[in-house]
Amino acid sequence: MDLFTSLDGYVPSDPTPENPMGTGWSQLTAAWTATRTFRRNLGDSSGSGTTGMDDRYAAAFVDGIGAEIMGAGMFGFHAFPDDDSWTGWWGERPPFGTPVYVLTHRAPRPSIVMDGGTTFHFRDTTVEEVLAEARQAAGDLDVRIGGGYGTARDFLRAGLVDDLHLMVAPVFLGRGHRLWDELAGFDAGYKISTEVAESGQIHITLTR
Amino acid sequence: MDLFTSLDGYVPSDPTPENPMGTGWSQLTAAWTATRTFRRNLGDSSGSGTTGMDDRYAAAFVDGIGAEIMGAGMFGFHAFPDDDSWTGWWGERPPFGTPVYVLTHRAPRPSIVMDGGTTFHFRDTTVEEVLAEARQAAGDLDVRIGGGYGTARDFLRAGLVDDLHLMVAPVFLGRGHRLWDELAGFDAGYKISTEVAESGQIHITLTR
Repeated sequence: MDLFTSLDGYVPSDPTPENPMGTGWSQLTAAWTATRTFRRNLGDSSGSGTTGMDDRYAAAFVDGIGAEIMGAGMFGFHAFPDDDSWTGWWGERPPFGTPVYVLTHRAPRPSIVMDGGTTFHFRDTTVEEVLAEARQAAGDLDVRIGGGYGTARDFLRAGLVDDLHLMVAPVFLGRGHRLWDELAGFDAGYKISTEVAESGQIHITLTR
Repeated sequence: MDLFTSLDGYVPSDPTPENPMGTGWSQLTAAWTATRTFRRNLGDSSGSGTTGMDDRYAAAFVDGIGAEIMGAGMFGFHAFPDDDSWTGWWGERPPFGTPVYVLTHRAPRPSIVMDGGTTFHFRDTTVEEVLAEARQAAGDLDVRIGGGYGTARDFLRAGLVDDLHLMVAPVFLGRGHRLWDELAGFDAGYKISTEVAESGQIHITLTR
């Protein structure tokens, strides 16, 4: 699982159709979206983008992932709750390239095949059940918990995350969801390592 | 100003006479107290201790400081509220070596001269007033806001901090005071830089 947060531990809490990830999201992800790997995964073949530590993490982000799980908000249901033709705000070619299981109370709903290998499936199940299905789909590859905030916390609380990569942007947001509230003890059994990229982005890795 | 916090933005909130800084404080400060400079400042002349990035910050911590301001809790009044002979929990030779202004509603109270150049003065004034007095005492040197949590936040909120050095230990405390609550906008006008020491400790510097 990969998470973005600010130095003060906030995640944007105010997504709108115009600003789908909420205030401050572009600040949290600035170093990430500047990488060559991220740009290439969005279809930029010019070779532009940073190539340092952030880029190595971005490459690892897509490496070995066979399925993804995300919440309804990260797919975009919260912005367009009543639009059945809405295919999410990730564009025609979402940067996943795998089956993506969207946890939503709007399921059942038909799956959507997108360009670039992404298929969105919609499920209204427990985190354990959707993880079992995603594992099956991923085969020998890993399942990534994509977020957002609520889904990530549900999986952390359930102890279902083997690898957590936390990216802390060198900014203070001052408001939003508090990522760490009421997660006391979630880190038991993890080893923690920290490093800082050329961009100033802090990369924190928790592994079992 | 120098502050310690955890990856989840907590500061210990439960000081007791037996554990005067509260649960988790030793985890937050492990890299710091392991430095050669910190040990030397406590009177250890053996030369033991780490000498990497943490030690460079520890050396800067005492460098050029002419006066210190701290809250009543950091002095130790909260643990021994009724003991007039209590000289704080920093030992006979506190690691300050300067005048230290303690903000407390227990003032007026006589100043206490300690070994090693530290004198504790007790003041019941505004943050602006005690800063003015400490500046006068420091002369050409800097005034350090020592903490703890409440005092640090009072000075940040008042916009009175020129240099903030934040040390984030690679641990999750899961509970305590939330250092960043209701400080939205405090970072306006600062430049932020980040680096990680050999110990895994994250050093964040805010300068105007």
